[in-house]
Amino acid sequence: MRAITIPEPGGPEVLSWSEVPDPEPGPSEVLVDVRATAVNRADLLQRQGHYPPPPGASAYPGLECSGVVSATGPEVTDWRVGDQVCALLTGGGYAERVAVPAGQLLPVPSGVDLVDAAALPEVACTVWSNVVQLAGLAAGETLLVHGGGSGIGTFAIQLGTALGATVVVTARSVKHDRLRALGADHLIDYREQDFVEEIRKVTDGRGADVVLDIMGASYLGRNVAALAPDGRLVVIGMQGGRKGELDLGALLAKRGTVAATALRSRPLDQKAAIVQGVRDQVWPLIEAARIRPVIDRRLPITEAPAAHRLVESNDHIGKVLLTL
Amino acid sequence: MRAITIPEPGGPEVLSWSEVPDPEPGPSEVLVDVRATAVNRADLLQRQGHYPPPPGASAYPGLECSGVVSATGPEVTDWRVGDQVCALLTGGGYAERVAVPAGQLLPVPSGVDLVDAAALPEVACTVWSNVVQLAGLAAGETLLVHGGGSGIGTFAIQLGTALGATVVVTARSVKHDRLRALGADHLIDYREQDFVEEIRKVTDGRGADVVLDIMGASYLGRNVAALAPDGRLVVIGMQGGRKGELDLGALLAKRGTVAATALRSRPLDQKAAIVQGVRDQVWPLIEAARIRPVIDRRLPITEAPAAHRLVESNDHIGKVLLTL
Repeated sequence: MRAITIPEPGGPEVLSWSEVPDPEPGPSEVLVDVRATAVNRADLLQRQGHYPPPPGASAYPGLECSGVVSATGPEVTDWRVGDQVCALLTGGGYAERVAVPAGQLLPVPSGVDLVDAAALPEVACTVWSNVVQLAGLAAGETLLVHGGGSGIGTFAIQLGTALGATVVVTARSVKHDRLRALGADHLIDYREQDFVEEIRKVTDGRGADVVLDIMGASYLGRNVAALAPDGRLVVIGMQGGRKGELDLGALLAKRGTVAATALRSRPLDQKAAIVQGVRDQVWPLIEAARIRPVIDRRLPITEAPAAHRLVESNDHIGKVLLTL
Repeated sequence: MRAITIPEPGGPEVLSWSEVPDPEPGPSEVLVDVRATAVNRADLLQRQGHYPPPPGASAYPGLECSGVVSATGPEVTDWRVGDQVCALLTGGGYAERVAVPAGQLLPVPSGVDLVDAAALPEVACTVWSNVVQLAGLAAGETLLVHGGGSGIGTFAIQLGTALGATVVVTARSVKHDRLRALGADHLIDYREQDFVEEIRKVTDGRGADVVLDIMGASYLGRNVAALAPDGRLVVIGMQGGRKGELDLGALLAKRGTVAATALRSRPLDQKAAIVQGVRDQVWPLIEAARIRPVIDRRLPITEAPAAHRLVESNDHIGKVLLTL
C-alpha cells in the first residue's frame, strides 16, 4: 500500500507518499481501508521529530481516520467486513490501510458523510475525556475554551453548549462570528483583550469552572487566575512552553485542580473506555445534529504538505481532512 | 464564658485565656459545651496573623472540638441537648462553648473517649475529602504521605491502610517505628533520602498513585516526579512556600493532576457533605478499631502556649489536645 512517510524530520515538504508494507491486523484488531484522515497538531510535531510514535505504534502519522472494514482479527466479534467506521488511532492514519484495536472503532454516525466522519474521533475523544470524564463539566457551569477555532475548540464549543454550559472562547476576532454560530456565548480576542478580566466580567467575577487549555506554561498563571472556586484547568497542549510558575496559594484559595493529559499515550483499556463513553454520550448528540463535524476543507492526501502548512498557519477553522 | 483570644499577632505567649461573650447559636446551629479541642497548624498561622478567620467565623482559634450539646436552634432536628458529639469548626474551638452548624457535628464514635474524639473531625474530614473524595484512592494503589507524624499524617496512614492501599511515608526516622505500627508499609527519612528515588524503588519504578502533600512549592517538582501514570497530587499545606515551577510536560506525560485544597474556606454545603461522607465511610472504620485517634498528649487549655510550642517543634506524633 501507500502511506505518507517521514524519511527525515523537517518542514511540510518532507512528507512523502510512498510504497510501504501493508499492516497486519492482530487478533483483536480490525483492518480499515482508509477513506479519509485528518491533520492534528501532533502530526506537525511528529513530522518535526518532536513527538515520536509510542512503542508499537505505526511509524506513519495520522491519529484518526474513516473508512471501511476490510478484514477482522479472529477475536473481533463486534465489527464485520464492509462496516463503515471511523477510528481513534495511535498513528498510521495517513495511509491506504490501517490496523486498529477493535475498541477504538466507532460507527459512522447517521447523518454524517463517510469522509467527514474522519473529523470526529480525535476531537470527540479528547474533548469528552477531558471536559466530561476528567473535569466533570456540569450544566450551568462556565467552560473557557482556548483556541476556539481549532478542531478541538470547535468541538468543545458545541459539546459545552449541548451540555448546558456557558461557553467562553478565546480566538482571533476574524473567527468570532463562525464560533458564535457554533454556540459560543462570549468571544475573547486574546491579542486585544485580557482573558482573565473578560471571563470575570461575564461571570460576575466568579471565573471559569473548567478551562480547556492548549498553551501550557505561557497561560498557566492566568488560567489559574481565571478559575472559579472548585475550578478545573485541563492542559492538553503546550504551544506556550512546558515549564511555568504555579501559585499553589492561589490554587488552594480556590480549591482548584490542574491536570495535564494526552490521549495517544493512554493504554488500550483507557482508550477503549473513552471510545465507549463517546459512543454512549456524544454520538447521540451528533446524530441529533446538536454537534456537527466542522471541516475547514478536504485535500487529497498527496497534498499533505499543503495541509500541514495550513494548520501551521492557524488560519483554518475546524478540521483539515486528507482524502484517499 | 472564657476563650483563648489573640489580642495581637505574635508568638505562643500572646494566647490569652479571657472572658468573652457567649456565642449565640443560629436557627440551624447547635451550641456545644466544649470538653476538648485540638491544635492544628492553621491555629499557629492564625496566631501569627497569617490566616485570618473567614467572614462570619469565630475570632477565636480552634477548628475542631468534642463536647456535649447544650442548646439547639429551632431548625435543628438531628441533635438533642445532652448528645455527646465532636465537630468540625470554622473557628472558636478554644473556648468553653461554641456554636456549630448542625451539618458539621458527628457523634462520638463508640469505643472512643469523649475527650479523644476532639482529635478526629479535622483530620478525618481533611484526609477523607482529599484522599478519597477528590483523589479517589483505590485498593491496590500506592499512597505517599508527607509529614507522616502529624495528625493528618497519622490519620492518612491508617485510612490508606484500611482502604487496602500501600502506604509510603516521609518522616524523621525517630518517628518511623511508631508510624510503621500504624500501618505504614515504607518509611522514608526525608532528611537522609530522596523520596522520589525511594518511592520508585518500592513501586518497581511506577511511583505513587496519590500524594498527600503539606510542603507546597518546595516539593512540587519532586512530587510530580514521584507520581505514577494517572497520579493525583493533593497539596493541603504550603510549609515550603506557595510558588513553584510546574513542569507541565512531565505532568502531561503521566496524565497527572495537581490539586490544592483547604477545608476551612469551603461553603457550608460542601462541609456538610464531607462530614456526611466521613460519617458513612470513616466512622465505621473507627468503630471497628481499624483507625484510632493518635494523641501525642492532653494539656489543659490554659497551657495553649505550650501546646503551640510543641506543635511548632514538630516533635509530636499525632494530635495535641487541649482539655477544658
